[in-house]
Amino acid sequence: MKAFMDQDFLLSTDSAKNLFHGFAEKMPVLDYHCHINPQEIAEDRKFDNITQVWLGGDHYKWRQMRSNGVEEKYITGDAPDREKFQKWAETLEKLIGNPLYHWSHLELQRYFGYTGHLCGDTAEEVWNLCNGQLQNKWSVRSLIKASNVTLVCTTDDPVDSLEWHEKIAKDKDFDVQVLPTWRPDKANNVEKPDYAGYIARLSKASQVSIRNFATLKEALVKRMDFFHQMGCRISDHALEYVMYMPADEAEIDAIIAKAMAGETIGKEEELKYKTAFMLFAAKEYHRLGWAMQLHYGCKRDNNAYMYQKLGPDTGFDCINNYAPSAQMADFLNALSATNEIPKTIIYSLNPNDDASIGTIIGCFQDPSAAGKLQQGSAWWFNDHKAGMAAQMTSLANLGCLGNFIGMLTDSRSFLSYTRHEYFRRILCELLGGWVENGEYPNDEKALKEIVEGICYNNAVTYFGFDL
Amino acid sequence: MKAFMDQDFLLSTDSAKNLFHGFAEKMPVLDYHCHINPQEIAEDRKFDNITQVWLGGDHYKWRQMRSNGVEEKYITGDAPDREKFQKWAETLEKLIGNPLYHWSHLELQRYFGYTGHLCGDTAEEVWNLCNGQLQNKWSVRSLIKASNVTLVCTTDDPVDSLEWHEKIAKDKDFDVQVLPTWRPDKANNVEKPDYAGYIARLSKASQVSIRNFATLKEALVKRMDFFHQMGCRISDHALEYVMYMPADEAEIDAIIAKAMAGETIGKEEELKYKTAFMLFAAKEYHRLGWAMQLHYGCKRDNNAYMYQKLGPDTGFDCINNYAPSAQMADFLNALSATNEIPKTIIYSLNPNDDASIGTIIGCFQDPSAAGKLQQGSAWWFNDHKAGMAAQMTSLANLGCLGNFIGMLTDSRSFLSYTRHEYFRRILCELLGGWVENGEYPNDEKALKEIVEGICYNNAVTYFGFDL
Amino acid sequence: MKAFMDQDFLLSTDSAKNLFHGFAEKMPVLDYHCHINPQEIAEDRKFDNITQVWLGGDHYKWRQMRSNGVEEKYITGDAPDREKFQKWAETLEKLIGNPLYHWSHLELQRYFGYTGHLCGDTAEEVWNLCNGQLQNKWSVRSLIKASNVTLVCTTDDPVDSLEWHEKIAKDKDFDVQVLPTWRPDKANNVEKPDYAGYIARLSKASQVSIRNFATLKEALVKRMDFFHQMGCRISDHALEYVMYMPADEAEIDAIIAKAMAGETIGKEEELKYKTAFMLFAAKEYHRLGWAMQLHYGCKRDNNAYMYQKLGPDTGFDCINNYAPSAQMADFLNALSATNEIPKTIIYSLNPNDDASIGTIIGCFQDPSAAGKLQQGSAWWFNDHKAGMAAQMTSLANLGCLGNFIGMLTDSRSFLSYTRHEYFRRILCELLGGWVENGEYPNDEKALKEIVEGICYNNAVTYFGFDL
Repeated sequence: MKAFMDQDFLLSTDSAKNLFHGFAEKMPVLDYHCHINPQEIAEDRKFDNITQVWLGGDHYKWRQMRSNGVEEKYITGDAPDREKFQKWAETLEKLIGNPLYHWSHLELQRYFGYTGHLCGDTAEEVWNLCNGQLQNKWSVRSLIKASNVTLVCTTDDPVDSLEWHEKIAKDKDFDVQVLPTWRPDKANNVEKPDYAGYIARLSKASQVSIRNFATLKEALVKRMDFFHQMGCRISDHALEYVMYMPADEAEIDAIIAKAMAGETIGKEEELKYKTAFMLFAAKEYHRLGWAMQLHYGCKRDNNAYMYQKLGPDTGFDCINNYAPSAQMADFLNALSATNEIPKTIIYSLNPNDDASIGTIIGCFQDPSAAGKLQQGSAWWFNDHKAGMAAQMTSLANLGCLGNFIGMLTDSRSFLSYTRHEYFRRILCELLGGWVENGEYPNDEKALKEIVEGICYNNAVTYFGFDL
Repeated sequence: MKAFMDQDFLLSTDSAKNLFHGFAEKMPVLDYHCHINPQEIAEDRKFDNITQVWLGGDHYKWRQMRSNGVEEKYITGDAPDREKFQKWAETLEKLIGNPLYHWSHLELQRYFGYTGHLCGDTAEEVWNLCNGQLQNKWSVRSLIKASNVTLVCTTDDPVDSLEWHEKIAKDKDFDVQVLPTWRPDKANNVEKPDYAGYIARLSKASQVSIRNFATLKEALVKRMDFFHQMGCRISDHALEYVMYMPADEAEIDAIIAKAMAGETIGKEEELKYKTAFMLFAAKEYHRLGWAMQLHYGCKRDNNAYMYQKLGPDTGFDCINNYAPSAQMADFLNALSATNEIPKTIIYSLNPNDDASIGTIIGCFQDPSAAGKLQQGSAWWFNDHKAGMAAQMTSLANLGCLGNFIGMLTDSRSFLSYTRHEYFRRILCELLGGWVENGEYPNDEKALKEIVEGICYNNAVTYFGFDL
Repeated sequence: MKAFMDQDFLLSTDSAKNLFHGFAEKMPVLDYHCHINPQEIAEDRKFDNITQVWLGGDHYKWRQMRSNGVEEKYITGDAPDREKFQKWAETLEKLIGNPLYHWSHLELQRYFGYTGHLCGDTAEEVWNLCNGQLQNKWSVRSLIKASNVTLVCTTDDPVDSLEWHEKIAKDKDFDVQVLPTWRPDKANNVEKPDYAGYIARLSKASQVSIRNFATLKEALVKRMDFFHQMGCRISDHALEYVMYMPADEAEIDAIIAKAMAGETIGKEEELKYKTAFMLFAAKEYHRLGWAMQLHYGCKRDNNAYMYQKLGPDTGFDCINNYAPSAQMADFLNALSATNEIPKTIIYSLNPNDDASIGTIIGCFQDPSAAGKLQQGSAWWFNDHKAGMAAQMTSLANLGCLGNFIGMLTDSRSFLSYTRHEYFRRILCELLGGWVENGEYPNDEKALKEIVEGICYNNAVTYFGFDL
């Protein structure tokens, strides 16, 4: 029996251990997609206790506490932090097989040097250990530096001033790049009640009076150019699915007018608007050399009772399994007609989409970049050992795994960089297993290039960052 | 090489063996969903031969015999029992990898002490061995007692008198609880030709004259209250998919009137009626503290040629892969608006639904029960080693496996309790593997609680049975 | 660590090794579905170099080169063959985990005796080695003979003269049977612009003046009878999905008239026509004793930019995930009403369909053949270790694996017979693993029959070939 989460955690063969300890472990971290708050980096925030860090905003953990029958006051409510931590510890010991079990213990090991296991009985000990270190040793910046991170991409709205990014960039004391990512969902969500209000804010930010599709595009282009100056090289879209319902510009203008007037937008109108929006956006990304991230397959805010109390992003989202692959192919094909497909990274929340994504990206590769179209690393609910192994196996079967740009945290927490370690262990276990079984030669030069590429180098090259 | 199906069958690590032999194997069986006939328990039926037991009504076996090109007279026809058994034995040896291979041999080992393997050559030997014991040793009750079963839930129609349940309850000589389950499919299937006839029977059983939705609900509530008095704590629904198409009560009344008049019900009418029916039923279950089982994803009676000869439930059903997760989420969300979600167990016949179910149940958990919403154990066509491991791995990845209520037989046979053993071996292999790999600490106290919980204790607590 | 792709490649247990080396390896090859050109067999074509063989028409390899950012001139363009080979070699070393890595090296080992690994550094050595042998040792016929092939089924259009098949049959110097397969896609694709032109060619070939559905059927029956005389026993259909939208003959006549007049055919018309066409075709196959192959789940020619340059079948196809299992069941059910289901083999490009196919075929089995309805071997994008293991595991779980008719190459290359070896290794690893784990008895007689059956014997019996 292997010891609990020791140095060879998840590594079962000598080849896997050699790849991880010889190559993967040493590579820096490029976290090209996350949701951390740049203000907290600029201000180098500190934390009072582990409950603040762990349970302050992590809806992954909240969901599991609810699954364990914990009352809401210990989750998002006003119970004392120590009691909340106790409830979390008692929940954790029942989460056998869950990635939170591993993530939590990796964080305890790497940042706090705790090698035991957290449960109801050990909660007090862990609480004291972590809080001492949080108050005396750790801050946002020191966590980032200790994690060997060279570059972070946050997630930002087109109307954002990016003032915190600017402050961080000008701060000579902190050499990690913190770059914005363009996420124009509010401009795309024409069916939402706050669309008109948002367009007003976008008009103001861009100094373009938006009254139709042409002026909306003009405003967005101005903001994209600003983001580009601020170092942005990546966009991100949250979509129900990658739709394709083309319409002419007059129709889009009419839909915009309707939405600006506060009228209800029908499903077909929504799909036409979003198709036009995405085609426009993709072509701009192609012009700017940006990568386009498409995150789809999620149905959000499903619990009406809790939504009233807590609002969005509080742990009530699920997989939406309606996502016709034909429309995704048609969308990319429409861009291919004029050879304007940008670098594209596709993530579905539905693990059943692995194979269809793998075959679709294979239809649109071209010499402008190795692995120009990527299947993104296993996302959100799939971000676990089985999900990551499945995503990489599918990618290897259908495409060129050697060009994969690898992991990102997608996190709101500064302790989450250990997810890169988790990913790298799973990667090395997979590759090492193939070598051990004679399915790939034990060619150190080739393996080093593949492993270091997937861990870090491929992403640097792919996005064109200055590192 | 391991011996064929020995004491460590399916257990490859020491940890797995320890968990199974130390904890799982010793737990009683709570079979909370099956299709056995309570009359046979009340009358303590005996069997003449193994063909009666195995091939009398088991359409799993019938399908495989047909797959092997066996003529129907040896399956459901009038060939002598010994010849039927021969055909089954010859089929079985080709079923390498099929769960029937394991189930059949577990039954031969546990109930008849036969440790060889059944094939054409050994059929005579097995036939004689089993028949001798069936005639001299075994009856329905002794099989149940020998299987360490404490409680069985049958599957019953709202109009059922439950007389056999009552007889069993009153019989001092048999201490296993045999409780009814509420399965109101006939009242829900408004599109079926026998709807009006069924409603007439329901009117009679409830002594409520059903003429609209209000009186239908009144009749059902009366029958539910009767079922509750008789110990029922669980309901069950067979659905094409979990639909959500809300309508007002006047519309539902009109649909009922149409169906009662024998007119054809359109698809949209069917969906509206069923949505209203399920919303009503779920709220009643919430009121009564019952669990709601949703079984969906099945298309039944596909073979017109054979249906004419044999009728339903004869082995001609398949997976229906249309099941929009968004509608299932919307259905539960509609119940959440008034905080009236009952304990719910969701099963899909389509294994691709594992992840979407796992994420949906995570949206509606609350403190009224640990694991209030459950993904049911791998069902029917998925009830095999790979399917059970996949269901539990998915559950562990997305939720709290420690709260899982575990296995049920879903069977029509009194020999099927060995499926609980099969499940427990797969469970222990999975958990033991994680411990062996250092993915979970070797913490005997925690593991004992998890294993015994999933095998038995969680279900007792979850359903609130008096055991 | 195992040596790279040695004699026990993919075989991890003694049982697996024994099954492969004892039984599987020695069996002949019956390649019942491929796309090789019979003219090249008749003329016993030779090749100048390995680029001709490998990169001449293999869009699997082209896709991976594009995924690796290789310029098109090195793929389908006019770069020198040696330079193309270099680009391929450099791509191959990044394809860790991809089936092309294994297929390529199996071909290098078996046909050229090369046991190293191909990469940029070894490309020159491999180029010289292979070309020497291609020029001096190998031809199409010697490759087929060396591969122990006894029978090959090509893929042919109803209007084809089958002259090359006839020449091969009459050639006493070549004893491998090369039989045609009936693939009437052009007659089924009523929505395509070349439908009318094709019907004219079919009229000519059949000497039936086609002007409605009745005469179309008459023409097809005449051609089927001709194909049957020429040894054809199998049909093949490429379908978006297996649809079912019945219509009466007058409607079909009207749709045909419209298509013949060059008018646009709507989606519903297309589905009605194809349903009628497939029902007709299936009944004829039943009459003739042919097997019907249904290949579905593919969306073709997705890259408009490249399609303009290269045309179809050049590496721009993907999975179409819309395929309602209910319609496939209804289609087969319509045939079952009159007991006219032919032997049927179903393949989906979407691996998520494994389970639904497995349950559908189980609804229509009958005594006219063991395993009358088959799930085809893992197809195209699924034709890799994980995909084949998944397909066989699913088949074993849901049906009778012992009756599986096994592998086919689906290839355009005469080096691809090693894919049968690849399949057999995966098969033996799977079966051997079960034996090793005590999940199936170590019964040599039964295992030999199962292994030899799946490798070769089952297909001979199933199709009724004279071998």
